[in-house]
Amino acid sequence: MDKPTILIQLDCDAHASVFDAVVALDAGVDQLLQYGAVEPMEVRDLVHGAMFTRGHADLHRTAIFVGGSDVSAAEHLLKHVIRTMFDPMRVSVMFDANGANTTAAAAVLTAARHLKLTETTATVLAATGPVGERAVRMLVRAGAKVRVGSRSIERAVAVCERASQGANEHQLLPCSTGTPRETAQAIEGSQLVLSAAAAGVEVVPESVWTSARGVRVAIDLNAVPPVGIAGIDPSDHRQIRNKVTCYGAIGVGALKMKIHKAAIQRLFETNTLVLDAEEVYEIGRSLVSAPATN
Amino acid sequence: MDKPTILIQLDCDAHASVFDAVVALDAGVDQLLQYGAVEPMEVRDLVHGAMFTRGHADLHRTAIFVGGSDVSAAEHLLKHVIRTMFDPMRVSVMFDANGANTTAAAAVLTAARHLKLTETTATVLAATGPVGERAVRMLVRAGAKVRVGSRSIERAVAVCERASQGANEHQLLPCSTGTPRETAQAIEGSQLVLSAAAAGVEVVPESVWTSARGVRVAIDLNAVPPVGIAGIDPSDHRQIRNKVTCYGAIGVGALKMKIHKAAIQRLFETNTLVLDAEEVYEIGRSLVSAPATN
Amino acid sequence: MDKPTILIQLDCDAHASVFDAVVALDAGVDQLLQYGAVEPMEVRDLVHGAMFTRGHADLHRTAIFVGGSDVSAAEHLLKHVIRTMFDPMRVSVMFDANGANTTAAAAVLTAARHLKLTETTATVLAATGPVGERAVRMLVRAGAKVRVGSRSIERAVAVCERASQGANEHQLLPCSTGTPRETAQAIEGSQLVLSAAAAGVEVVPESVWTSARGVRVAIDLNAVPPVGIAGIDPSDHRQIRNKVTCYGAIGVGALKMKIHKAAIQRLFETNTLVLDAEEVYEIGRSLVSAPATN
Repeated sequence: MDKPTILIQLDCDAHASVFDAVVALDAGVDQLLQYGAVEPMEVRDLVHGAMFTRGHADLHRTAIFVGGSDVSAAEHLLKHVIRTMFDPMRVSVMFDANGANTTAAAAVLTAARHLKLTETTATVLAATGPVGERAVRMLVRAGAKVRVGSRSIERAVAVCERASQGANEHQLLPCSTGTPRETAQAIEGSQLVLSAAAAGVEVVPESVWTSARGVRVAIDLNAVPPVGIAGIDPSDHRQIRNKVTCYGAIGVGALKMKIHKAAIQRLFETNTLVLDAEEVYEIGRSLVSAPATN
Repeated sequence: MDKPTILIQLDCDAHASVFDAVVALDAGVDQLLQYGAVEPMEVRDLVHGAMFTRGHADLHRTAIFVGGSDVSAAEHLLKHVIRTMFDPMRVSVMFDANGANTTAAAAVLTAARHLKLTETTATVLAATGPVGERAVRMLVRAGAKVRVGSRSIERAVAVCERASQGANEHQLLPCSTGTPRETAQAIEGSQLVLSAAAAGVEVVPESVWTSARGVRVAIDLNAVPPVGIAGIDPSDHRQIRNKVTCYGAIGVGALKMKIHKAAIQRLFETNTLVLDAEEVYEIGRSLVSAPATN
Repeated sequence: MDKPTILIQLDCDAHASVFDAVVALDAGVDQLLQYGAVEPMEVRDLVHGAMFTRGHADLHRTAIFVGGSDVSAAEHLLKHVIRTMFDPMRVSVMFDANGANTTAAAAVLTAARHLKLTETTATVLAATGPVGERAVRMLVRAGAKVRVGSRSIERAVAVCERASQGANEHQLLPCSTGTPRETAQAIEGSQLVLSAAAAGVEVVPESVWTSARGVRVAIDLNAVPPVGIAGIDPSDHRQIRNKVTCYGAIGVGALKMKIHKAAIQRLFETNTLVLDAEEVYEIGRSLVSAPATN
């Protein structure tokens, strides 16, 4: 009989996420080992337990999920997980702290239903947070031109630098979006506006995006009003507002969940995967048949 | 294939109860997620993970169990659980911190095997503890007259006030039971004496309850001697002592366990249940065919 | 339908061992309850939850595993586990903190493939650590003469005293091994040299053991170089070096894992087992057909 599939949930919060646990179980994981309050220094022993218990032939039936609400703390855990493993004793790993990878992937793939990304200019607002930066990386990979908006031009530049690998020199443009006027400028001429702002921070007044020329799709990833793009409702799903096709966080939620589950299942196909932003995006892309519908 | 049933065990103790875990698994729960040392402020995120991961059609296959040895701390957790949920995104919840609900229900239903509760006067001793107060509420609901005994008449009055919802004005009587003489008075004329005293506290000397007139059933819920009703043994099960039918904690244990398991199973029938004292009592009632045997 | 088998993992480390968890699941345990950071004072309630939830007929389907990287702290937990249980409400318990029992058993049984232990003199180096002391106990039980080596003769004497139960007076000899010369003396005339030294501590220079007369088998239990017996590689498995058959930690790892899994399975056959050093050794012995191959 096959050995059970085991997912080891390493979470930087005091309690390992219920959300991630339920999704994992619904994806068909046989046995879930939950670890909360995981410190970077504790990762090595936990990962060794995954590496040294099953023979190489069964290592693909063990995997690690790194999560938690603090994306930056979780990224530290991921680094330690990757650093601990060596060939051929690897197990696959997925990173989705705060849902950042699956949310960004769902947003970009939703946009791709309406726009041909290789011909799209996208403005990502609050692009320096974990979801925003991941959306930027995915858009670049998909061939879009991306305006990277932040109140701090320095942080926008830093995101552009990190996202520039594999991008051509015209794909990334840092934009200061500290005032409505600057934001209007950043949006003007974009076909896609995507906000990854923190809860309760409005980054675009309604008058700004509805008066901008060329905007065809607007996506706001905040699940709780007030949202970042004023006028969008979290449950918007293909909602036409002022001729713009709008989506809210709940509106992209079904796709996000589908991607999350598919990524978990992919973990158990081989023992060498590291599913971070780009890989999660590719898994999402394989799920949607996404011809531009314009 | 059906999604697995998932029970989320929220426990206020440092380690989530093994007892509650084993009962849940024996009740057929597919996957148990254990959380110990849960603080009220952490409940929201954990419950959101239960609410937002499965579609409405599958929400009845996720449920929450609130437990722990500190009943009052666990009640705080329960409040936060209930406050977090909203229609229609609910999952069912069971409360049984320190076994208080299932123990009280087993005790009252055991009494009902021998007495017609609508015609019974019951004296509950140490009625201001969590098990005692729950037994009072269940007895009132079953139509009994209840004398609510406590060393502190103020606390007895408070319990009566909280239990009075749905009760008629003659059903509840607070009694001071600070001395053997007062206790004798509280018992005199009752058909049922039920003690929910803390471990090692004797609330009724043997001479008091054996000389009281009218007592037909005596139940003591302390599993470790000395028990609250002197002369009862924890393993008493329908034991006749001085013409009184006696039960100890272990004697009502099998029924308690049966109620606990049935309640867990009930959780997964619909997504809107809150199983606290009254609801657990009703589940117990549906399990026993309890004609009065007097 | 049979109740699920439940293993309760009590671990003194902050996070319950992933290693022990995976082995348990691969051994077929249906449901694993993991408890990390367990304090001795918390054991009682956890064990009561195992004792009082299933009827006697099903108690053999619940068991406890005591582990953690700090063997001495875990031994305290084990003491509390054993002290809590009473007849007939027992569940079986296995102790393998830091893999000490399964590692020692695998080492001694590996030696027994090449040597007739009743006719063997064995020198155990670093014999006062948890693995070393367990190997001494197992060798004594198997009828070998054992030289118990330690830098501290007092600690060596203490180990001999603890291991002397059931031994005859000529079986145990404490040896000071503080210098290469003393170590050479301790090894001289032994057929088996077994090192259980801590990571990075070389206890035998290569020139010492290769020039000693009579040594036929050398086993080093450190998985990370430098190892205790200089010249042995952790992956040595039946490797002949200077006419001596050598094994490293990884070389005995497959047998260690086999013993660990078999011991877990044995836990669920009856409810009264305490699987510590000697019992784990016996389980290992039943697994190997170990005729001396000299």
